[in-house]
Formats: sequence, C-alpha cells, structure tokens
Amino acid sequence: MHAEETPSTPVAMDTIVALAKRRGFVFQGSEIYGGLANTWDYGPLGVELRRNIKNAWWHFFVQLRRDIVGLDGSILLHPRAWEASGHVDEFNDPLVDCRNCQTRYRADNLIEERLGRNVDGATIEEMTRVIKESNLACPVCGQRDWTEVRQFNLMFRTFLGPVEASGTQAFLRPETAQAIFLDYRNVLQSSRVKIPFGIAQIGKAFRNEITPGNFIFRLLEFEQMEIEYFIRPEGWEPVFEEWLDAMQAFFRFIGLGEARLRQREHGPDELSHYSKRTVDFEYEFPFGWKELCGLAYRTDFDLRRHQEYSGVDLTYFDQATGERFLPHVVEPTMGVERLMLALMVDAYHEEDAVDVAGKPYRRVVLRFHPRMAPYKAAVLPLMKKPELVAKANEVWDLLRPEFPTDYDETQSIGRRYRRQDEIGTPFCVTIDYDTLEDDSVTIRDRDSMEQVRVPIAELVPTLRERLER
Amino acid sequence: MHAEETPSTPVAMDTIVALAKRRGFVFQGSEIYGGLANTWDYGPLGVELRRNIKNAWWHFFVQLRRDIVGLDGSILLHPRAWEASGHVDEFNDPLVDCRNCQTRYRADNLIEERLGRNVDGATIEEMTRVIKESNLACPVCGQRDWTEVRQFNLMFRTFLGPVEASGTQAFLRPETAQAIFLDYRNVLQSSRVKIPFGIAQIGKAFRNEITPGNFIFRLLEFEQMEIEYFIRPEGWEPVFEEWLDAMQAFFRFIGLGEARLRQREHGPDELSHYSKRTVDFEYEFPFGWKELCGLAYRTDFDLRRHQEYSGVDLTYFDQATGERFLPHVVEPTMGVERLMLALMVDAYHEEDAVDVAGKPYRRVVLRFHPRMAPYKAAVLPLMKKPELVAKANEVWDLLRPEFPTDYDETQSIGRRYRRQDEIGTPFCVTIDYDTLEDDSVTIRDRDSMEQVRVPIAELVPTLRERLER
Repeated sequence: MHAEETPSTPVAMDTIVALAKRRGFVFQGSEIYGGLANTWDYGPLGVELRRNIKNAWWHFFVQLRRDIVGLDGSILLHPRAWEASGHVDEFNDPLVDCRNCQTRYRADNLIEERLGRNVDGATIEEMTRVIKESNLACPVCGQRDWTEVRQFNLMFRTFLGPVEASGTQAFLRPETAQAIFLDYRNVLQSSRVKIPFGIAQIGKAFRNEITPGNFIFRLLEFEQMEIEYFIRPEGWEPVFEEWLDAMQAFFRFIGLGEARLRQREHGPDELSHYSKRTVDFEYEFPFGWKELCGLAYRTDFDLRRHQEYSGVDLTYFDQATGERFLPHVVEPTMGVERLMLALMVDAYHEEDAVDVAGKPYRRVVLRFHPRMAPYKAAVLPLMKKPELVAKANEVWDLLRPEFPTDYDETQSIGRRYRRQDEIGTPFCVTIDYDTLEDDSVTIRDRDSMEQVRVPIAELVPTLRERLER
Repeated sequence: MHAEETPSTPVAMDTIVALAKRRGFVFQGSEIYGGLANTWDYGPLGVELRRNIKNAWWHFFVQLRRDIVGLDGSILLHPRAWEASGHVDEFNDPLVDCRNCQTRYRADNLIEERLGRNVDGATIEEMTRVIKESNLACPVCGQRDWTEVRQFNLMFRTFLGPVEASGTQAFLRPETAQAIFLDYRNVLQSSRVKIPFGIAQIGKAFRNEITPGNFIFRLLEFEQMEIEYFIRPEGWEPVFEEWLDAMQAFFRFIGLGEARLRQREHGPDELSHYSKRTVDFEYEFPFGWKELCGLAYRTDFDLRRHQEYSGVDLTYFDQATGERFLPHVVEPTMGVERLMLALMVDAYHEEDAVDVAGKPYRRVVLRFHPRMAPYKAAVLPLMKKPELVAKANEVWDLLRPEFPTDYDETQSIGRRYRRQDEIGTPFCVTIDYDTLEDDSVTIRDRDSMEQVRVPIAELVPTLRERLER
C-alpha cells in the first residue's frame, strides 16, 4: 500500500516545510545568518531521499539499459561553450523596476498576473510598451513609473585566475547538458556505443533566480539528472514517444502516483531556442500544477553550434550504412529537488488512528515507496532497560550493513511509531522481553500497522522480501 | 589477488593519462575548445569509479556506523559564513610576477624550489625581501625584476541578483565543512544524535588554482567527502587516533594497498589557522609523495566563530552531565579525485602473458578491488554469429539488473579479454557454441586468467560470491 495505491491527503506547503525541517529533510540555507534566499540544505533524512532518487535514476536509465552510458562533466566549461549553446545571448529573464519603490519584477510574470495576458515570445520592447500602454500600477506602491524592460542573464559569472580584469570570465553551468555535447566525441572514441545511444549525467546546475522559489521548487543551485539520447536525423517522433513512456515508467519505479501527474505540450511561442518539441510533466503541487520535469527534442542544434564554434568535426560515421551525419538528440531532464518535493507531497497521508494505549489520534504517515524511504527499518527496544537496549543494539548491528536503519530508545513506543510513520520508515522492529527468551522480534508495517512476530535469524530475509514486494 | 596483494607496476603519469582517456575514465575538460586548465571530465568508466568510491565511503562511514548522519549543504552560503570561517582573510596563496616576462609564480614554491628554503608561515613582506636579497633570477627569462609578493584569495567570487554593483557578493565554497557547522544546530534539533557524533557530507568544492594540476590531482572543482566529528572539549587525542585507524580501514575497504601510503604529521608552521593537529595521508604518486587526504583537529574554532558572527547560541547541552559547552571537532577529509587517481595507479599492473593463440604479449591489467571496478563483469560472445549474439544478450539482460555489466562483440576474443583487463573488469563471461547445447558459460578471472565452466542458472550467485570473496 504505497503512495500510488491510496490517494494522498491534500497538504499545505507550510505543513510540508515544517515537517521537512522538524524531521531533518530540508533546512533553510545559511539559517543562522538569517538565510540566503532560494538556497536550502538537506538534512540526515533529506540526503538519504536524494541519494535514493539519484541511485534509482542511475539504476533505471544507465545500469539496466543496453544503450546508455554515464558521464560526469565539469561545472566550469570553456566560456566559448556558452556562446555556442546560445546561453550568453538567450538565457535571459526580462526584468522591470518600479522607479518609485524600487521593487523589481519579472516583466512577463507581472503582465500575466496583473493583465492576464500571455507575452511568451514577446520582445523586451513589446513588454515595455504593454506596461506603458495599459497604465499598469505597481502592485506594491500603486505608482505607474516604470523603467524599460531589460534582459538579465541567469548565468552566474565568475573569474578564473588571480585578477578579475585580466582573468578569464567563466560561468557556472545553468544546465548539465553542454558537458555531454563537449564530451560526445570522446565517448564515441573510448566506448563502443552506436546510434541510437544516450549519455547520462547527474550534477549541479546554477541559475541566478530573483523570483521567490516556493521552497525547493526554484533554486539558485539544483541537481539535474539529464540524458542526451543521440539519434539519426530522421524519425525522431517515435523515439520521443518512447521516452515519454520511459519517464512514466520511472515515476512508477520510484512510486510517484499518477493522480497528480499530467503531460503538457509546449506551444510554438514558448519553445526554447533549441527545441522543436517539448513536453513538460506537470505535478499538482500545493501551489498548483507546475513543471516537474520535461522532454525536449533539441534537433542537432547543440552539436551543430559546437562544431561551428570549435572547428572540430562532430559528425557521426555509421559503419553499417556508410553515412556521415550530425546526430539529433532527444533530452529527458529531471531535477532531484522537484522530484523530492513531489515525492514528499505524494507520500503525505493523514488519517484517524488509535494508538497502542487505545487513544484516538490523527496519524501522519509518509507512504514512500520502500525504494525511496530514507530508512528501511527502525529498531526500537520496547523500553529503555539495559537488557532490551543491549539486545536492540545487536539487532541494529545486524540490519545496518543490509540497509539504512534507524534506532530509537527515547520516549514511549507509541511516540516512536508515530515518529517513524512521519519519516516514512516502512518497518519498525520492536525488541521486548519475549525477545530475550525466544530470539524473536515484532515487525510493524507502516501502512497497515499490522504486527508480525519473526525470529531474528529470519529478520533480514523477511524484511528484504517485504521491501521488494 | 587484488591490488593490495601484489605490488603494482611503477607507472608514468603519461601512461595513466593516456589509458584514462583511451578507455573513457578521464577526458580533458572542454577539450574541443582547446581545454580549460585544471578541469577534467569523467567518462563512462570514470563516473562509475567515482560512484563506487562515493558509495563505499557513504556505506562505510554513514550507513555502517551508529554515530554518523548525512547532510547535503549548499555550495552558495551566506557571505558572512566565509568571514566567520576565516577564509576571506586567510585562504590565500602568495603570488609574485616577473616584471620582464609577466610570468606569475606561487612565491613560496618559487623560493623553495630555487633557493631550497622553506618559507611556510612567512609573511608576504618576508617573502618579498627573500626574493630581493637573494637576487633571484626568473626561471623563464633570467631577469631579476620582481613585483612585490601579494596575497591572492583562492575562493571564486560571484554575485547573487541582477546587478553586480548592487548584488550580494557570494563565494563558491572552497571546502564542504562550513555547511556542516551552519546546519549543526538543525541536525541536533531534528535527530537524536548525542556527542560524540559526526555529520558526513559529499559535495563539490572550488578553488581558483593557478598552478599546474598534475592531471586530476589539483583541480578548480573537486569533490570532497568530509566528516565533522563533534566531541567534548577534553580528550580529543584518543578520538584522533581512532580516526586515523578508521581512515586506514577505509583504504583497505576500497582495496588501496599500504605499500605507497604513509602518514605525515604537520609541523607547527604549516598548520591551518583553525587546526591544532593535522596528519596527512600521503600517497606515492608517479610525481612523488603527495597529500592524498588528511585528518585535522579543528578545536571549537568554527563553531565559536559562527556563534560570534551570527549571534546564535551554538552550545551543546549534555543531558547526562547537565553541562553546556561548545563541541570540538575532529575532521577526516578525503577527495574523490585523489583517491581515484591513487586507485588507478595502485591497480596498474603490467606482466608478460600468453594470449589465447599462444602468442606472448605484455598484459596491462587494472587490479581494482571488485568493489571499485567500473564493470563487475563483461559478456562476450565467442564470435559475432547471430545465435551466439542472441544468447549473449540474454545473459547480459540477466546480469545487468544485478551489477554494472559490459558487453562486447567486436574483434577477436583475445583483444576483448585485453580490453576488459585494461579497465579492470573482474570477470569475463564467454558464450560459445557449447552454451547453445548445455546452457553453460565460461567465467574468466581477471587476475589468475583461469577459466571455469558454470551453468547459466548459477551464474549470478557464482559471480556474486566471487565478487564478495
């Protein structure tokens, strides 16, 4: 009975944010210094959830498949790479300031929210005119005195070398994709991949976002899981459909339910400069339907541009047909943090329950797929008595080498069950006085709350079997 | 017969660099644009080796231990954090330029190499005087016209927000440690850790290095695996010794031999501003004995400074004793790339061998510990015949879900064995015409080159048992 099998409880963002902090999933970045906007840190449980997402992705898309190999490219690339990719010229947000109160806005968002007009694809001159002609008032101060709309590049800049004036300007990558194109020729020469094949990469990307982030939805730094899937120039449509299916299959693999998932086709106006078709997977977050991840057909845009800018031949020679051509790519991209947030929202359940003392209470349980749960089991001595604690530690020692396992000897057993429910631990293993006699323990199932008695000798295989069920 | 059991063959860096490129371990960063100094990308095999190192570290230090939890903090921290940590003032290299030919040098290295004098701990004024008074000639042009020695901060700077003049200056973290100190209070409040306990983190760090990097030894961006282990202020010495042992045990866990490892105590002059004792583990790389990783006793320097700069109480309350104090820390730090390079050098073996046709050849084999090998097995049809290829693909499909497995149907079987030896694959699984009759395959052992016949039904458990032997 994982997340996909029971509809999750609608939950407010505040509830998720508070649980995430209280239980060690997500902390505000630099909190003791008052925070740094749009940065978050991942605590002891958050880092395990992130690891589970990344390892599941790698297992599913690299290890299991015949046609995909991995890569780990630099964050800092030669600056020419970002000219070739179009990011220096094109990767901009349109900004506008209120001259009176100095508040800064994303011009397209301001126009859409205040005037109900979609300006995707509009130039900055057009947006400036729309704001002027509609006599738009500043939402903060009510004045109508605006700057021109101007483009702001979202790439973070830095300098390599000791003197900023003479040093080499460099950018923090805003997407992981480009290192794949830069290394594509090296991968061809060092492995035996043949088209169609993919190169997969997980790594950080950075965007100088100035708009509020909705918790971990929009971030200054985030982790992408990206594949460039290289194909022949003709016949990309069925490959695109296969990848939509593969992405859906991955959501099932990590237990993300379908109830809050939908696909949305990009209109011609909103396609990126490199794309001929893009489909977003949207998830119904507490703040509405938003992009979870996407699939883009990038054509041969990137390889063609890098070939032009670098002067290096990036064509592919097909030994079977004797043809030489620039491959096209289909690109499935996911972000660790958005998946993490969707998994937490999806797993969130509240229900009326009765505790071990017969008292009714409101149970909060994260019904993570076992593959995603930060801890697979928790070992709990019934009470904090030396003989129970000693035995419980033996059992804990037995389980830790097998999978991440928590241990808790504080407070009442009922409180401890609730704590494990709230962090989504599939199984609690309780050590009681009978254990000292019969070397058996009680396994409590997170979802059904049913308890079964199992000999310690059978504990590992029993848990393993249930985790993989 | 893994790396630790047979002395590896001394190898030149050029040989390692060439093998790393040819086989897809390491590529020059931004190579098609002429490269970007001190950046490298990790190819299909390199990324698997990196994953193995990181997963082994996490398993060994987080999952297996009772007293350590994980964290994943931001690369971008509030700028005050780097003032508190001392990095804004202290994290400098002394640079000096030749006025004639404009060549730039690390002043301390220049003095040490040219004059044989150790100037660790010297001020920039003292180094300027040493260069002047010794009448040092520029190694490039021979002139004696030097600039003053000046401090150059190694942190990369960037700006948050749209306008560089008004934006917030931020730094790319030069070490992962600080996010641990910033989140230490949140970890205390959200988990049940009690002193002594550790917080572990894996993540990228960045240093604006201007000196040549020796392949992946010194990099602009690198990945740290770091633990802050929080202890009571008194009695740090035995904890320090325990951590030296734990680091040694980890080297054994990943199969890094002891022949090229040694410990080196930092002298009083070279201790960092925050440390009271530091021990480096040095490895004998092809370019000499160099720092592989280290263990530092950082006292309560960081928590004390962050408490002072943030105004937030960072003391720890010991419920057992009723005491309140600032914990001290012992910090084991490792870098993924240096371990990766050491593992490759350590695994490198050359030996005289005889091929399947009876011809002698020089065998190159990477004797990785199976835990570190990028592929655990390779499936090879004896010849590229449809019926053998079909059967081999069935076997490949059987193995891939279990562990990373390669497949190769190109060229002669002898060539393919050599290729797998060169990338350190522990087992080759060969499909021949007998396989079609008896559903058995041949397993060839990388190290002994012995072959055994095994039914396909027993292949997975047999390989698993041998991999864990």
